Amino acid sequence: MNWEAIYHIDDVPYAFPVRPDAVKVRIRAKRGDVRKANVLHSDRYVAYRNEMPQELELVASTASHDYFEGVIVTETKRIRYVFQLEDGEGNSVWFGELGASPNRDMAGVFNIPYVSPSEVHELPEWVYDAVVYQIFPDRFRNGDESNDPPGTEPWTPDASPSAQSYYGGDLAGITEKLPYLQELGINLLYLTPVFVSPSTHKYDTTDYLAIDPHFGDIGQLKALVDEAHMRGIRVMLDAVFNHSGNQFFAFRDVVEKGEASRYKEWFFAERFPVVESPVPNYVTFGNAIATMPKLNTANEELKQYLLDVAAYWIRETGIDGWRLDVANEVDRTFWRDFRRAVKSEKPDALIVGEIMHHSGPWLRGDQFDGVMNYMLRTAMVDFFAKTSIGVREFSGRLSMIRMMYTDAANAAMFNLIGSHDTERFMTMCERHGFGWGEEKAVKEKMMLAVFFQMIYPGIPQIYYGDEVGMRGGEDPECRRPMLWQEEQQDGELLAFYRKVIALRRQYAALRRGKVRVWLEEESLGVLGIVRDDGTQRVAALINNSPLEAVVSAGSPFGSGPSGFILDAMSGVRYPHEGRLQLSLPPYGCALLCEE
Amino acid sequence: MNWEAIYHIDDVPYAFPVRPDAVKVRIRAKRGDVRKANVLHSDRYVAYRNEMPQELELVASTASHDYFEGVIVTETKRIRYVFQLEDGEGNSVWFGELGASPNRDMAGVFNIPYVSPSEVHELPEWVYDAVVYQIFPDRFRNGDESNDPPGTEPWTPDASPSAQSYYGGDLAGITEKLPYLQELGINLLYLTPVFVSPSTHKYDTTDYLAIDPHFGDIGQLKALVDEAHMRGIRVMLDAVFNHSGNQFFAFRDVVEKGEASRYKEWFFAERFPVVESPVPNYVTFGNAIATMPKLNTANEELKQYLLDVAAYWIRETGIDGWRLDVANEVDRTFWRDFRRAVKSEKPDALIVGEIMHHSGPWLRGDQFDGVMNYMLRTAMVDFFAKTSIGVREFSGRLSMIRMMYTDAANAAMFNLIGSHDTERFMTMCERHGFGWGEEKAVKEKMMLAVFFQMIYPGIPQIYYGDEVGMRGGEDPECRRPMLWQEEQQDGELLAFYRKVIALRRQYAALRRGKVRVWLEEESLGVLGIVRDDGTQRVAALINNSPLEAVVSAGSPFGSGPSGFILDAMSGVRYPHEGRLQLSLPPYGCALLCEE
Repeated sequence: MNWEAIYHIDDVPYAFPVRPDAVKVRIRAKRGDVRKANVLHSDRYVAYRNEMPQELELVASTASHDYFEGVIVTETKRIRYVFQLEDGEGNSVWFGELGASPNRDMAGVFNIPYVSPSEVHELPEWVYDAVVYQIFPDRFRNGDESNDPPGTEPWTPDASPSAQSYYGGDLAGITEKLPYLQELGINLLYLTPVFVSPSTHKYDTTDYLAIDPHFGDIGQLKALVDEAHMRGIRVMLDAVFNHSGNQFFAFRDVVEKGEASRYKEWFFAERFPVVESPVPNYVTFGNAIATMPKLNTANEELKQYLLDVAAYWIRETGIDGWRLDVANEVDRTFWRDFRRAVKSEKPDALIVGEIMHHSGPWLRGDQFDGVMNYMLRTAMVDFFAKTSIGVREFSGRLSMIRMMYTDAANAAMFNLIGSHDTERFMTMCERHGFGWGEEKAVKEKMMLAVFFQMIYPGIPQIYYGDEVGMRGGEDPECRRPMLWQEEQQDGELLAFYRKVIALRRQYAALRRGKVRVWLEEESLGVLGIVRDDGTQRVAALINNSPLEAVVSAGSPFGSGPSGFILDAMSGVRYPHEGRLQLSLPPYGCALLCEE
Repeated sequence: MNWEAIYHIDDVPYAFPVRPDAVKVRIRAKRGDVRKANVLHSDRYVAYRNEMPQELELVASTASHDYFEGVIVTETKRIRYVFQLEDGEGNSVWFGELGASPNRDMAGVFNIPYVSPSEVHELPEWVYDAVVYQIFPDRFRNGDESNDPPGTEPWTPDASPSAQSYYGGDLAGITEKLPYLQELGINLLYLTPVFVSPSTHKYDTTDYLAIDPHFGDIGQLKALVDEAHMRGIRVMLDAVFNHSGNQFFAFRDVVEKGEASRYKEWFFAERFPVVESPVPNYVTFGNAIATMPKLNTANEELKQYLLDVAAYWIRETGIDGWRLDVANEVDRTFWRDFRRAVKSEKPDALIVGEIMHHSGPWLRGDQFDGVMNYMLRTAMVDFFAKTSIGVREFSGRLSMIRMMYTDAANAAMFNLIGSHDTERFMTMCERHGFGWGEEKAVKEKMMLAVFFQMIYPGIPQIYYGDEVGMRGGEDPECRRPMLWQEEQQDGELLAFYRKVIALRRQYAALRRGKVRVWLEEESLGVLGIVRDDGTQRVAALINNSPLEAVVSAGSPFGSGPSGFILDAMSGVRYPHEGRLQLSLPPYGCALLCEE
């Protein structure tokens, strides 16, 4: 056994409360090393050596490591525990706070001295059922031409937006299209910024307390939220708190009054007077983007201002949460206070940060519920769009990402295949395209990725227009006006979206079930994933290859009464006697369910 | 190279800011695997592959792993980095967010997206110079017989206290003995609780806002603090916020009024009415200790009450910090607010938690500065008192503990060999004693441990009376009244304490220098440790064996102008030409310094 590869720490994400009386523990070892993993635990205040071993389950495997998990139930909320790992040859090792040892006492123990109820990262129940649709408001629907900005460009599907284009999309348009969204099956909207700003993207806020007049007004936002709620759709807005726009009143005050400004500590001026050009002498978002001065969120006065903003929109319009822009460059103390402010205003609000890399420091339960899961997107791009990695590597990446976080954080992830900041997924499939039959394969790969979104833990995220086959390279191409002309929409793709969203809504196991890898058929390109919520089990099969795949494998199901397993994708029933044999078309998928 | 053993995460304690413009990174590999470790880094917003490799230093080794560290300086406060590790045979591996790979792109990168100034864990400068003396007030000095509790027992050195004994020690007595403490060389006092309580230990607080009348009053505490400050000694009190006493007014109110009490949420009543006997029906400290009802520190009202208590004593009496009782069983959100309240009242206050195990979750810079370093104590007991582990294991444990925490946390540790909750160290040495010459060896081993405390990073902690040779098993034996009769004190031991404390004060490297292991002579029982603050280098040698040890080793010093190295312990000068040769007596030590 590779002792040096074993890792555990009595802290997130290797140990975390899942209920006030239960803690999940997780331990890592070299892949294939450990045949049996046990945890021995007791109350911290009782004598040693009376513990019963509790066996852990192998829950995830990366290219290099296996991960085992178990839930320790504790009545007293105080746990002392140690691991015992066995290989296939009868060797065993103890692993505790002092490391690995053949001698239990030399290994030490781990401690969860008190499970504080306030430290259980609980998600609002609705989050498990959520499918989110992202809207870039200027480009979704022009519902009110009277508020169009000067120079609004025509709403044509083959438009080539510039970074400064306006198309007249607005809140009224979103409200108008709620029936379309409801029919699609989504139940959560995430709007990129809607507050007053001189830009089309509005990530340079002028007024955090007012809706941009080109989008509408607070009444229209209220109407949108109310109407959405009536249709079972929640609404999240985008909080841009890392930086303001340079027209923000406080920044103008600093520019005008310099060191005498009462807002000077709200920003990071390098010198006074503050100048915006030719090169800004203050810290900005990105590299010297003068229009986006960085906010000093450690300043108590500014902090209170922004927390009031966050609470204001919840209170006044009933929105259901915040997506946080550039969340990783903002003070973490601020985010902790932000969480308290938001959750005390609306306990079932959702908070999702924009972070494109490992997000552990923000996902300990004290800041965000989840993040935009760009690490997962990269894996999906590599596997589905580029085919630059195979089944085992993809499966390993999925495991690795899940093992970085708690169960709650994994369930609150925005699992996206694209956004306003990326090339559209279909376009990526195209760019890494195929020989003959190309167009069909492109769409099939897109569908396969969407199917995967719907069977995986976390919140599937749909970027507006992806569902009707919109194409587009990186910003601004990915921000074309929404394609509404039915004859130009990809009806097959749209039907597929509706179908797989409906399946996610139909099968609770896809939303709340634990996830296990069932099949990794590297040579076939087939990945099988089982979801199981304790009462229902479903198995998803993905054939990420241009060839038909004949799968013959031990069944993940018990022998049900009917003796048949239904593929909910095709409607085909397969006989089932402990082994499953079925054929998947090129880039095909199946969703197997007991009847 | 053992790839699976490599570990790093872009989070504490593997990456942490040491200044607003600098982040320390740390990476772990199997011991002996890595000949050269580099980090490649750049601003996150510039293109890849323009980075210069920066070599990391091997800073610590455990039995199983080596740790490498380096400091990345960042002007923009945004870092992207990846590691490159080389073995001795020319093989190299990249290590990033996605794991280990021979291919740089497949390894991914790590990210520190923004170094928030507020997240730099800065210690008050005085902490680096601190040597702390722990006093159990009832047992240190009776300075005012008029406030003695009824039944006060006679102050005899061979007393056998019961758990209920009172000896009349008080604040006036501590003030009276400040000259003694100043002469000893300590500059920080930590008093176990002094607030009103029915017990002798006072860990069951009746009134958080009043000094126990048997100890004195607020005026006497002020006088103690003022007089101590004039002598360069700071004072810390003990905050018992995990539980109150059952005479605490709020708990009495709950007992009397049951569910109607406005304080019912301050505790964890299982049922109403609350009963204290025969078995308490509320959560307590420990197992059903009725006199210590657990406090619900997640309750906002109680939280504010306790934060006000913490600020009150700082404001009113000028105390310099808080030691936190049972700190590991209290809500972490509470501790974050506690830190803000204390540091805003007194920015250079010190906060040290009582935690006896791995304390990473509390030492991220947002809660405590340090903890009582019981893990280090266990290592010292095993090595010095019990001799149950050898030099390599001891050195490995030291490394392991250091590598669990940031530099700041390591510097703020209370490095204790004993406390009011443990057997006295000298008694442990005795119990694991030797054959003939026993008494001498016991004291020599004690001295060796004290020497080690003084040359190691962190705050050396002295438990009252240890310095004059007091003996005592576990509580209540370790809480005997202080031995003041000079003829019964161990004068040699006291002189040794004064000497090694003075050496710590003399050599800045012992207080602020980085720590490196220089020699691990397992068969001789000799450990050599170098401290270096950039301008001064000192080397400590410890011979933890009953035999004389002849050490012959490469010198950690350059060839100084004098050509001699001074042993500050013995005053002997050794010739020095790149190699050092010297002899250490049984259980002897040396402190080598360039002249």
